[in-house]
Amino acid sequence: MPSKYKSLKEECYEANMQLNALNLVVYTFGNVSAVDRADGIFAIKPSGVPYEILKPEDIVIVDFDNNIVEGDKRPSSDTKTHAYLYKHWETIGGVAHTHATYSVAWAQAQRDIPIFGTTHADHLTTDIPCAPPMADELIRGNYEHNTGIQIIDCFKEKGLSYQETEMVLIGNHGPFAWGKDAAKAVYNSKVLEVVAEMAYLTLQINPNAPRLKESLIRKHYDRKHGKDAYYGQ
Amino acid sequence: MPSKYKSLKEECYEANMQLNALNLVVYTFGNVSAVDRADGIFAIKPSGVPYEILKPEDIVIVDFDNNIVEGDKRPSSDTKTHAYLYKHWETIGGVAHTHATYSVAWAQAQRDIPIFGTTHADHLTTDIPCAPPMADELIRGNYEHNTGIQIIDCFKEKGLSYQETEMVLIGNHGPFAWGKDAAKAVYNSKVLEVVAEMAYLTLQINPNAPRLKESLIRKHYDRKHGKDAYYGQ
Amino acid sequence: MPSKYKSLKEECYEANMQLNALNLVVYTFGNVSAVDRADGIFAIKPSGVPYEILKPEDIVIVDFDNNIVEGDKRPSSDTKTHAYLYKHWETIGGVAHTHATYSVAWAQAQRDIPIFGTTHADHLTTDIPCAPPMADELIRGNYEHNTGIQIIDCFKEKGLSYQETEMVLIGNHGPFAWGKDAAKAVYNSKVLEVVAEMAYLTLQINPNAPRLKESLIRKHYDRKHGKDAYYGQ
Amino acid sequence: MPSKYKSLKEECYEANMQLNALNLVVYTFGNVSAVDRADGIFAIKPSGVPYEILKPEDIVIVDFDNNIVEGDKRPSSDTKTHAYLYKHWETIGGVAHTHATYSVAWAQAQRDIPIFGTTHADHLTTDIPCAPPMADELIRGNYEHNTGIQIIDCFKEKGLSYQETEMVLIGNHGPFAWGKDAAKAVYNSKVLEVVAEMAYLTLQINPNAPRLKESLIRKHYDRKHGKDAYYGQ
Repeated sequence: MPSKYKSLKEECYEANMQLNALNLVVYTFGNVSAVDRADGIFAIKPSGVPYEILKPEDIVIVDFDNNIVEGDKRPSSDTKTHAYLYKHWETIGGVAHTHATYSVAWAQAQRDIPIFGTTHADHLTTDIPCAPPMADELIRGNYEHNTGIQIIDCFKEKGLSYQETEMVLIGNHGPFAWGKDAAKAVYNSKVLEVVAEMAYLTLQINPNAPRLKESLIRKHYDRKHGKDAYYGQ
Repeated sequence: MPSKYKSLKEECYEANMQLNALNLVVYTFGNVSAVDRADGIFAIKPSGVPYEILKPEDIVIVDFDNNIVEGDKRPSSDTKTHAYLYKHWETIGGVAHTHATYSVAWAQAQRDIPIFGTTHADHLTTDIPCAPPMADELIRGNYEHNTGIQIIDCFKEKGLSYQETEMVLIGNHGPFAWGKDAAKAVYNSKVLEVVAEMAYLTLQINPNAPRLKESLIRKHYDRKHGKDAYYGQ
Repeated sequence: MPSKYKSLKEECYEANMQLNALNLVVYTFGNVSAVDRADGIFAIKPSGVPYEILKPEDIVIVDFDNNIVEGDKRPSSDTKTHAYLYKHWETIGGVAHTHATYSVAWAQAQRDIPIFGTTHADHLTTDIPCAPPMADELIRGNYEHNTGIQIIDCFKEKGLSYQETEMVLIGNHGPFAWGKDAAKAVYNSKVLEVVAEMAYLTLQINPNAPRLKESLIRKHYDRKHGKDAYYGQ
Repeated sequence: MPSKYKSLKEECYEANMQLNALNLVVYTFGNVSAVDRADGIFAIKPSGVPYEILKPEDIVIVDFDNNIVEGDKRPSSDTKTHAYLYKHWETIGGVAHTHATYSVAWAQAQRDIPIFGTTHADHLTTDIPCAPPMADELIRGNYEHNTGIQIIDCFKEKGLSYQETEMVLIGNHGPFAWGKDAAKAVYNSKVLEVVAEMAYLTLQINPNAPRLKESLIRKHYDRKHGKDAYYGQ
């Protein structure tokens, strides 16, 4: 009997393969999940399986309390972070985590990525936040669960909306991104990497480069995402 | 009945696909147009359509006052900038806009790209200008139309000829390039990106690198473009 | 009669071809070996043979005292370094040497690569050591043999375990990496290159970037390599 | 009747196509030639012909005084530089010129590339020289011929041997490389680009990185090129 989660597994599989095609991962350094809110479960990449041999049926189904619902394989070691985000941010449909080069460099530098241009403002209106490293006892404890708390705490402290800012850097670690589905989470991971490279180069050319001014931020964000958006079909 | 603009659409389609092949865009971050001066119209990429699924018949035909002449799709959100350039610069046949990495980095740094070498002088004799960001009321107003004004004002203020300097950076945004046809506009976009990377690296190696001297600028530009040009067939 | 070393040669050949596929070498600037401890020999790339024409039967079999056991070709000029490492580090099964760009840049800068993030800590808990250049008389003497001594001396002085830190930079030269087999040695060479690029970018963004804190180093290393590891299948 | 220069043209064609395959050129920004000393002529790429449509029969045959011996096409605009080098350096068999990114960056920075490591010393024992820009009257005069003089003067002033140092940067312009044949000239162009990138990164990581010490320079150069060389087959 075919799995009732067949199409969710395929969506998750395709999104994981995109990470690889978009040069966002080497080896197994990344994972994407896709949620089914009606069933209260999500599909996620199995831990440590190389992309070259990954198959749709290897994808693992997990609930929001980290119980395996279907699958022979162990899910990604970052599963609890995905679960925590799905549980607390009720409109997201996909989550992606990578170790993409420029995103990681900013995370290791423990710096927010300043909004320098319209490529950035086409996607979000704020700097890309970098969450500070957790306290030692949280790292030694339920680490991946606490990474979820770390992300949400960072958004609360900075007064950010997860529906407008769909990406974050974890200090010393790397990026997480999310969106309405798994494909959008991967798209946001790529946008983050592109913006991270551009911001890096901008500061190398002009260490005093100014942030984008408010009128340009609003114009570019709103023409794609505002109520009178006129970008796209 | 086939469109009377079939070959113009194909020229425009091929030029847009070249942006992708030359690594000048990710996703839909770019657009190229091709003009037909006799008919007073131009062909342009539809807004937000991924290159993987773009077809020649998706290309939209627009006049210089931004009226759609033919096509089911919404044209690029930057259409008014293209229209303004075609209307005011009467000898250009194609316009390209990208978010190519090094070009954007210089635009975000709000710096002209200095003429450091013969790769640059083979194509133009001036620094590549970076137009300053517009006033807030122009951004909040007819933004893409005003971007056209911003480019032409920049050329007037700097005393540049659009026939000799076929490229510009919009501060905090990215590059526009143009030429006798759409293919040349794409070619100039690639030259700009190559020159932008070389200039970036030059300043990293030697922050006091001198600009190219006048005799070398003239020699290289004229051997390709002067009245006694001896480059090419 | 087929060689008794046929499968070892194939393992070695595949690992060498991976160097090329992973963009870790240009031309012939690299070599990988694979050991057979029972027979006291190892297989290694022939010297100066381009990857495009390399065949499994070109691989040379050598013992730990650098005698050729089988093969028509001269083995890699770095063979004595491999032999020395196999002789003194009894649990390693493969060794790889490359001139990968970022790894070489750190070696030429004569700097250890600081542990800045979890990508690094997923693989080792220490900075990646850079062995200082040898004394002149050792360079003029049995150079490649002495390079083996140089590596092992560096590990002794820094109190490192070759089983936990499976990579090193030779000052002014480039990286060596090793592991349980040739494929793992190549994997570690790629990890080193990725980490070297990330560390480079990190310091460009923030010259005062802090090293990763101890609790994060232990958490990430142990979840992949500790007694309660939960990464992978 | 087939051309008597058929095989020379093919050698030249293959070498030019390699420039492209090795990512050393975009568009037509480069050229390679191959000499036949017995006949006192050389084969060179035609000017401005894209690599995608270049054919072996397009290659032009020229003598050392820049007379076209065979071919319908105009030869490379840099032909006189090639001719001058062949005339004065009697053992070289091929010359290559590119606008490769890192090589050009050093040329634009007007800096010799310091010898920082063994990748460099495997190929030459000196810094890679950067010839200063010519005097204005030489630029306005017989420019490409004078570029040949500029290269040879630079070697004389620095006391370099063209047989040991097979590459040079022309200040504000880009690299020339040569060797026993056209393929070796292309190989040297690639080595130069790789070494240029490594040296750039080295100085970014450690602005006070020391030059490679003499004993390591000699060891690495001599094991590949000395009388007791033991590298290769």
